[in-house]
Amino acid sequence: MAKEITNREENYSLWYNNLVVKADLAENSAVRGCMVIKPYGYAIWEKIQGALDKMFKDTGHVNAYFPLFIPKSFLSKEAEHVEGFAKECAVVTHHRLMNSPDGKGVVVDPTAKLEEELIVRPTSETIIWNTYKNWIKSYRDLPVLCNQWANVVRWEMRTRLFLRTTEFLWQEGHTAHATRQEAMEETQRMVEVYASFARDWMALPVLIGSKTPSERFAGALDTLCIEAMMQDGKALQAGTSHFLGQNFARAFDVQFASKEGKLEYVWSTSWGVSTRLIGALIMAHSDNNGLVLPPKLAPLQVVLVPIYKGNDELSEIAEYLQPIRKALEAKGITVKMDDRDNVRSGFKFAEWEMKGVPVRIAAGPRDRAQGTVEVARRDTLEKQSVPVAGIDEYVIQLLIEIQANIYQKAHVFREKNTFTVDSYEEFKTRIEDGGFFLCHWDGTPETEEKIKEETKATIRCIPTDASPEAGKCMVTGKPSAQRVIFARAY
Amino acid sequence: MAKEITNREENYSLWYNNLVVKADLAENSAVRGCMVIKPYGYAIWEKIQGALDKMFKDTGHVNAYFPLFIPKSFLSKEAEHVEGFAKECAVVTHHRLMNSPDGKGVVVDPTAKLEEELIVRPTSETIIWNTYKNWIKSYRDLPVLCNQWANVVRWEMRTRLFLRTTEFLWQEGHTAHATRQEAMEETQRMVEVYASFARDWMALPVLIGSKTPSERFAGALDTLCIEAMMQDGKALQAGTSHFLGQNFARAFDVQFASKEGKLEYVWSTSWGVSTRLIGALIMAHSDNNGLVLPPKLAPLQVVLVPIYKGNDELSEIAEYLQPIRKALEAKGITVKMDDRDNVRSGFKFAEWEMKGVPVRIAAGPRDRAQGTVEVARRDTLEKQSVPVAGIDEYVIQLLIEIQANIYQKAHVFREKNTFTVDSYEEFKTRIEDGGFFLCHWDGTPETEEKIKEETKATIRCIPTDASPEAGKCMVTGKPSAQRVIFARAY
Repeated sequence: MAKEITNREENYSLWYNNLVVKADLAENSAVRGCMVIKPYGYAIWEKIQGALDKMFKDTGHVNAYFPLFIPKSFLSKEAEHVEGFAKECAVVTHHRLMNSPDGKGVVVDPTAKLEEELIVRPTSETIIWNTYKNWIKSYRDLPVLCNQWANVVRWEMRTRLFLRTTEFLWQEGHTAHATRQEAMEETQRMVEVYASFARDWMALPVLIGSKTPSERFAGALDTLCIEAMMQDGKALQAGTSHFLGQNFARAFDVQFASKEGKLEYVWSTSWGVSTRLIGALIMAHSDNNGLVLPPKLAPLQVVLVPIYKGNDELSEIAEYLQPIRKALEAKGITVKMDDRDNVRSGFKFAEWEMKGVPVRIAAGPRDRAQGTVEVARRDTLEKQSVPVAGIDEYVIQLLIEIQANIYQKAHVFREKNTFTVDSYEEFKTRIEDGGFFLCHWDGTPETEEKIKEETKATIRCIPTDASPEAGKCMVTGKPSAQRVIFARAY
Repeated sequence: MAKEITNREENYSLWYNNLVVKADLAENSAVRGCMVIKPYGYAIWEKIQGALDKMFKDTGHVNAYFPLFIPKSFLSKEAEHVEGFAKECAVVTHHRLMNSPDGKGVVVDPTAKLEEELIVRPTSETIIWNTYKNWIKSYRDLPVLCNQWANVVRWEMRTRLFLRTTEFLWQEGHTAHATRQEAMEETQRMVEVYASFARDWMALPVLIGSKTPSERFAGALDTLCIEAMMQDGKALQAGTSHFLGQNFARAFDVQFASKEGKLEYVWSTSWGVSTRLIGALIMAHSDNNGLVLPPKLAPLQVVLVPIYKGNDELSEIAEYLQPIRKALEAKGITVKMDDRDNVRSGFKFAEWEMKGVPVRIAAGPRDRAQGTVEVARRDTLEKQSVPVAGIDEYVIQLLIEIQANIYQKAHVFREKNTFTVDSYEEFKTRIEDGGFFLCHWDGTPETEEKIKEETKATIRCIPTDASPEAGKCMVTGKPSAQRVIFARAY
């Protein structure tokens, strides 16, 4: 495999696009803005799903499935919600095709027009709250803690594989509670679940905070989020958890009889992460040789490559490596033996580096004679000769170390690129180089908008901070209760 | 819980509908023909997915994801395919809504009309083969063995929860092969995977066979299927596996360079099962008390119900049952302790019977004094007093026995209701009472159609039969190579 991707330092954006394609993760489809998630990319999504699904169930949630289509009138029921989504909707207007009168292909059958148009769900609050109306009558029916794994469609103008696509896969949790307090706790609980997942599985350090009112989800009273730093210093929002107050309960008239027998509107939350996480994973850790995957999300954790000349040597070496494969598999490690005979081992090395396999084990006749193998780790590209005896324990430890090292590296990078700045002039200069900027802001949407227009930086979040430091807005000099995080973002 | 479902013997169809709703499996949504799969129903689907997904991977398949939308022109590329699906398509024509000029709600923005309409996938052969075109260049790229878990939409006129819905969840395998032989073997392999799954997990005996040409998938050269008998004697097609020949490869011009360096069209298969399987599960095994679930697919396998008066007794009995719960969970059994204090135990018994939990364990003060529990099995409704010592092993054996018994019962029922008939007059009378009929047919679509019109019975399949018996068509008297299965079907 020739070196086929652009250098990260040359053109970060092109590096990312090249990498997604060359590592066989995804590709653009014939449908504008929709991607094909290829088997290797989908295997990462399956790992993400598996880990998150367990975390959701461990926190008391169950899965369900709601319709793909939303009647147009439902969207309008919550004023801010429709404002937020109406402009990027795929609209189904007909339910039948017919043979074209000119005999060429098919056309929409005009007699099969729907009475009410259907929207392909951009998110499911409206259809779900219309359903919850029938499920919730009494405080005994609460809480309702449902999650859905689904596809959604948002007609984005500019799309990029994984980061922003017309159709994407995600999970959306939708919960219903008897009290404001409970719903707020749930909102917090789930953003923390996302943060733990990012840290423990994706090896990705994230900041937790609230969005400003202008960056909130359409229909939310508060949006909590996790924000991660990519290697170009830009921010990526990796997950959101919304406190929706009683907005959707009011819009769909969902009331319950409280313990005291009073009718009250239900409190709600929603929260989601999507295939965008795969984009985050790539952008946070990978290098000019390709993907770097944290072992816990790598579809393949170890690849075995026999080094040989001729078929006799191949079978000798393969026989030498076979027990290693078995020993690793017995420990639950995912292993592949790459014994292809139509490509050279240099090609194989490059290919598995491109695909981000955390550990490569190679052996040739000399290793076999010595009872050793060559172990290469993907994160640092270091190689070491290791005795075969005890190789399974060695690899287990190495995978743990790699997982920790990838996190540590990302953490150090973020710390190095997080700046406390008080002067707007300084901010305007330094934002060009990327990074997170801790600055004072006067809390008004006008100042937020001005900064965005002048610098392309947005407030990523108002960090959840136990001991906030008061100060003065870097633009207007008006009082600020705490520093917020500014960055340019994906 | 009052007895709330219609008797199966009175009105089978209403019994089914009642059951789906009362057992909390699914309900109709606000969108015509689309269902909401409720958490309990979705939990069954997750079990089905888990088991099938493993079987697919064990036979060398990988998962991927392809776009929800199909450009209209793609559908037309395979002539039979478009004929089969054009009349039941959800068509996306616009990508934006706007505020209604009258200020009330939103309307479709006429300026946001798509150049080419998009079809919400009714099945994905076309979009996938358009993608495979770029993946397959050489024999070394073959086989391609992809599966996709997805939602699909078919605008059915008459819908029924799980059995036939506008949107449904399914998996669709799409494979590409270098030779006709290999593709035919794959078609056979996957229908056998489905048959094993039905037998081993769903406790459902099925017949394997080929569809007649008029019942084939639109675009297939051969459709293999599994057919199951429901308790009203009607047939339900539970899964299909299609040999597509080179039809889609030709339609999308997918050729590969063979080992010999010649350009050849690729051979293909597709195969799928859907949430319809949940309908089959319900219809095949359940009774007038509710669901009967095979233990291997039951979201809850054991429910513990303390029998008590007053809070003191409750805590005593709960304490008595707690170790049983732990012992069962330690063996990997899914257990729920139902210690609700707002409903009586009779209500609980009825509720868990309705939900088809295979084993119920109840205990009151007298059981506690004796060191026993009352174990009730859902399939036979038998109860037995069992010593607490060794209860975990007892329950494990009982679950195995229940799984086997449910299968056995369904098998006996099918055998009892499968008839060999040679006279068309006799056939016309007896088909009214349901059942599978093994009859001779002359192999013509005309005779098949005549029988369908006169009796509403269709040929469910031409069974895969090692030693076919030749005979004469029951309608025309013309020669027949083997008996085929006739039945009325869902």
